[in-house]
Amino acid sequence: MSQVATPMFVRSDHVILGGAALAVAMAGVTRYLGGGPVLAFACSAIAIALLASLVGRSVEQLGDRLGAGATGVLQSALGNLPELFIALFALKAGLVAVVQAALIGSILANLLLVMGLAFLVGGLKHGHQKLDSKRARATIVLMVLSVVAMVLPSLAFYVHAPAAEHENALSLIVSVILLGLFLLSLPASLKRDADEAAIPAMHHEPPRWSMAVAIGMLAAASLLAAFVSDWFVHALEPAMEILHISEAFAGLVIVAIAGNAVENVVGIQLAAAGRSEYAFSVVINSPLQIALLLAPLLVIASQVLGFATLTLVFSPMLVVSVSLAVIISAFITFDGESNWIEGAAMIAVYAIIATAFWWG
Amino acid sequence: MSQVATPMFVRSDHVILGGAALAVAMAGVTRYLGGGPVLAFACSAIAIALLASLVGRSVEQLGDRLGAGATGVLQSALGNLPELFIALFALKAGLVAVVQAALIGSILANLLLVMGLAFLVGGLKHGHQKLDSKRARATIVLMVLSVVAMVLPSLAFYVHAPAAEHENALSLIVSVILLGLFLLSLPASLKRDADEAAIPAMHHEPPRWSMAVAIGMLAAASLLAAFVSDWFVHALEPAMEILHISEAFAGLVIVAIAGNAVENVVGIQLAAAGRSEYAFSVVINSPLQIALLLAPLLVIASQVLGFATLTLVFSPMLVVSVSLAVIISAFITFDGESNWIEGAAMIAVYAIIATAFWWG
Amino acid sequence: MSQVATPMFVRSDHVILGGAALAVAMAGVTRYLGGGPVLAFACSAIAIALLASLVGRSVEQLGDRLGAGATGVLQSALGNLPELFIALFALKAGLVAVVQAALIGSILANLLLVMGLAFLVGGLKHGHQKLDSKRARATIVLMVLSVVAMVLPSLAFYVHAPAAEHENALSLIVSVILLGLFLLSLPASLKRDADEAAIPAMHHEPPRWSMAVAIGMLAAASLLAAFVSDWFVHALEPAMEILHISEAFAGLVIVAIAGNAVENVVGIQLAAAGRSEYAFSVVINSPLQIALLLAPLLVIASQVLGFATLTLVFSPMLVVSVSLAVIISAFITFDGESNWIEGAAMIAVYAIIATAFWWG
Repeated sequence: MSQVATPMFVRSDHVILGGAALAVAMAGVTRYLGGGPVLAFACSAIAIALLASLVGRSVEQLGDRLGAGATGVLQSALGNLPELFIALFALKAGLVAVVQAALIGSILANLLLVMGLAFLVGGLKHGHQKLDSKRARATIVLMVLSVVAMVLPSLAFYVHAPAAEHENALSLIVSVILLGLFLLSLPASLKRDADEAAIPAMHHEPPRWSMAVAIGMLAAASLLAAFVSDWFVHALEPAMEILHISEAFAGLVIVAIAGNAVENVVGIQLAAAGRSEYAFSVVINSPLQIALLLAPLLVIASQVLGFATLTLVFSPMLVVSVSLAVIISAFITFDGESNWIEGAAMIAVYAIIATAFWWG
Repeated sequence: MSQVATPMFVRSDHVILGGAALAVAMAGVTRYLGGGPVLAFACSAIAIALLASLVGRSVEQLGDRLGAGATGVLQSALGNLPELFIALFALKAGLVAVVQAALIGSILANLLLVMGLAFLVGGLKHGHQKLDSKRARATIVLMVLSVVAMVLPSLAFYVHAPAAEHENALSLIVSVILLGLFLLSLPASLKRDADEAAIPAMHHEPPRWSMAVAIGMLAAASLLAAFVSDWFVHALEPAMEILHISEAFAGLVIVAIAGNAVENVVGIQLAAAGRSEYAFSVVINSPLQIALLLAPLLVIASQVLGFATLTLVFSPMLVVSVSLAVIISAFITFDGESNWIEGAAMIAVYAIIATAFWWG
Repeated sequence: MSQVATPMFVRSDHVILGGAALAVAMAGVTRYLGGGPVLAFACSAIAIALLASLVGRSVEQLGDRLGAGATGVLQSALGNLPELFIALFALKAGLVAVVQAALIGSILANLLLVMGLAFLVGGLKHGHQKLDSKRARATIVLMVLSVVAMVLPSLAFYVHAPAAEHENALSLIVSVILLGLFLLSLPASLKRDADEAAIPAMHHEPPRWSMAVAIGMLAAASLLAAFVSDWFVHALEPAMEILHISEAFAGLVIVAIAGNAVENVVGIQLAAAGRSEYAFSVVINSPLQIALLLAPLLVIASQVLGFATLTLVFSPMLVVSVSLAVIISAFITFDGESNWIEGAAMIAVYAIIATAFWWG
């Protein structure tokens, strides 16, 4: 994602680095020395977002040596790293409902909130915005297919009694199939990202960091992200209790937005800069990866690692919400144009769904 | 809507005026002097349709002084006036199920029955008809978003137990959001209607009525519409009992068609005249206003005025029906072409839904 | 369908004829002399597929005398003959659940499995494939409408209690409406197929069979198909028991694939030959006929002939599956392009649905 962020952030390396160090320190202090779970929770959330940004920048600095295609794939893999860590620690803590809500919430946040904000900001600044690239349509078709596959175990569980007993087996089978589709789509992604990198002529700059610095930064930021994710999850339950927030809402809204902070900001900035097609591409690739990679990986990991068992049987309201979000974004993609009222309406739909989950 | 109707009806002012006077008189007689509830019901239904036509004509005559944009907005606001009156009196009489069915029924009647008839008539007379204006797609995307927002309280009520206790609060929140979207979309509508008025070169004629006559007619027709709506609702229950018609069917089919009579006729006439794009625009704007303006206004009014409480928790079959209707019309809009067989199939789907509601 | 098959199969008449004779003989032997139900089942399935191919070839040989339009309609009518026979014998044997699953399964097999295989094979051989003919979009819109009509009795049954008592009446009404739509669409099909036959310039060859041979072959193959369908259904239950296969899975997967074998092979061959638009047209016409012709015909026949009553109230998971399949194929059609990853994802969705039905 930070491949995209570069032109805007280019001179802000030190700010991000300093901010991340400060936030990690604060998160550690509030975790081990006290300060209350709400503060601990807030500090670790900010730290995760900044570490995610550092991971992205490191990959991008490596990018010039790896080639555009491989960089894209590496970013795809590492972009969801913070979400992966948070989800794993949450599963270890038995917070299955939070993880399920966070997976669906990440998709909703991208497809409704961030895309809505991008349309709103972009539309207000630049009027009608064009979207109809072939690639956007191909991505959304693949997303429709992936999300259908991802929610089929839930549908079978709720409406087909004989399959309900096999919740676990069906979730594992679907997870393997989804991972298979992810692997099959990798070569095309490699090629595609290479094409894409070529097109927008990204103010190509010489690498700012040496190879060693980039690799070291990547390793350090990833490692720290893992630690801070643990602290984040540790503070989650007590903080929610103090703030009277339900598990479902915490997962669907708070964890989902914290875990996707960077993509979210980048998508909106691109739209504000009038680069609507590119913003759109960033915003719809993230939920596709959640359905094809993150969700199935977590299902399998939860069983291999012996954590609380995560299945793909989501609560009915989560299934309804993600289905509506995907249908909405499919029609918007096929429309090929967006305006700021559509953006406002998408944010409205997101707010209504979040409200329904508020009463947990 | 009668902005549209003008070229066809232009010399029929006296006919409509006379018809309306006669129908109102008959409705009054059957209401207060007897004649049986079925006759009273029929007379008041016809009177409402003719008064709605007069309201439209008055606005149009004012239009030349107000400018095209303001006229469009005024018509948007006044076009649903009869439906608003009927719904308010029905809520006062405690007929919540009728009002809910009528709201969804108005959307269904426009999207399936009237659009189907327009395609059927237009297709038989003119062959394949083009629809793919950008504006039609933008309108349908906004309708998908609005209808999703409108049915979310129902979905939350049926599949998300914790939210079910907050049916009222969620309905009010969604209503405020929908009204907010309506207000946000007003400036664009003003501009849009102005553009539209320019394009079809509507046989621009000098106003036939003086300013005073137009305002007087508007006031008188609106006032009478309010009275007759009361009589209509008064006759509704006994008439349904005599005719063995269920509340759901009465609302979904009869009230919905009576309340939209004018738009319905105009849409079909435009299609018959080969002006398919314009017909389509008339037919899809009406349900959008129901979702964005009429439904939320009634929810709020029912609580402010202390009538029977109207919420946005519709019966499941209403939710299913409106969802299918919106998806169907979205695909048809995106197709960009219609033919008469599609029209016939849309009428068939409408008939099947109506049949399902026939049994209560 | 064999109108399409000709260029590929042209010199294989004797092979098919010999194969069909052998398979029919084997099916008869295993039916009456023993060999076990699994072998009997397999032989009769193969015999049905080969007889279906012979029916298609006979119609095509008649085609040159009838004209392209009439040939298309005749093939539409006769192409589903084996499915009709199987379904009738299954209804006679009381296997309502198998027939319902087979109807939905035929639609799923065409829209997900065969179309997926066509995209996969065509995409791997020829890269991105174009689909966006107006006709494909018109066909899919009509399919969306037909499938909505077909599943409305189920939706009414499950979510609208008063209609649930009238399951039979509603199914009959919908069936009559669907047949009416089929008849209305016939003239357009006649014209359309005539146009289509003209376009691809099908290596027009002189008829290989005399009129008498063609009619005799058609009669003989149809008659034999009826007998073998009886044997197929006779072996179905014991074979499923031995193989531990549920009724739902048998209908959804096995009967559906056996009954559509020819369309399936032809569709994939056309895609492999790079004729993606034509393949697509073959693959989406078949499910349309199932919804408009075969399903309603069976509902009416089951009541007229006094067999086990077939209604259009499908199990919820069947409704969910067919709805998802239609939405997926609608978005893919409107996309106007396909690639092999989409094909793989469609096959994946089909496999997941089949897996859910594996458990009963």
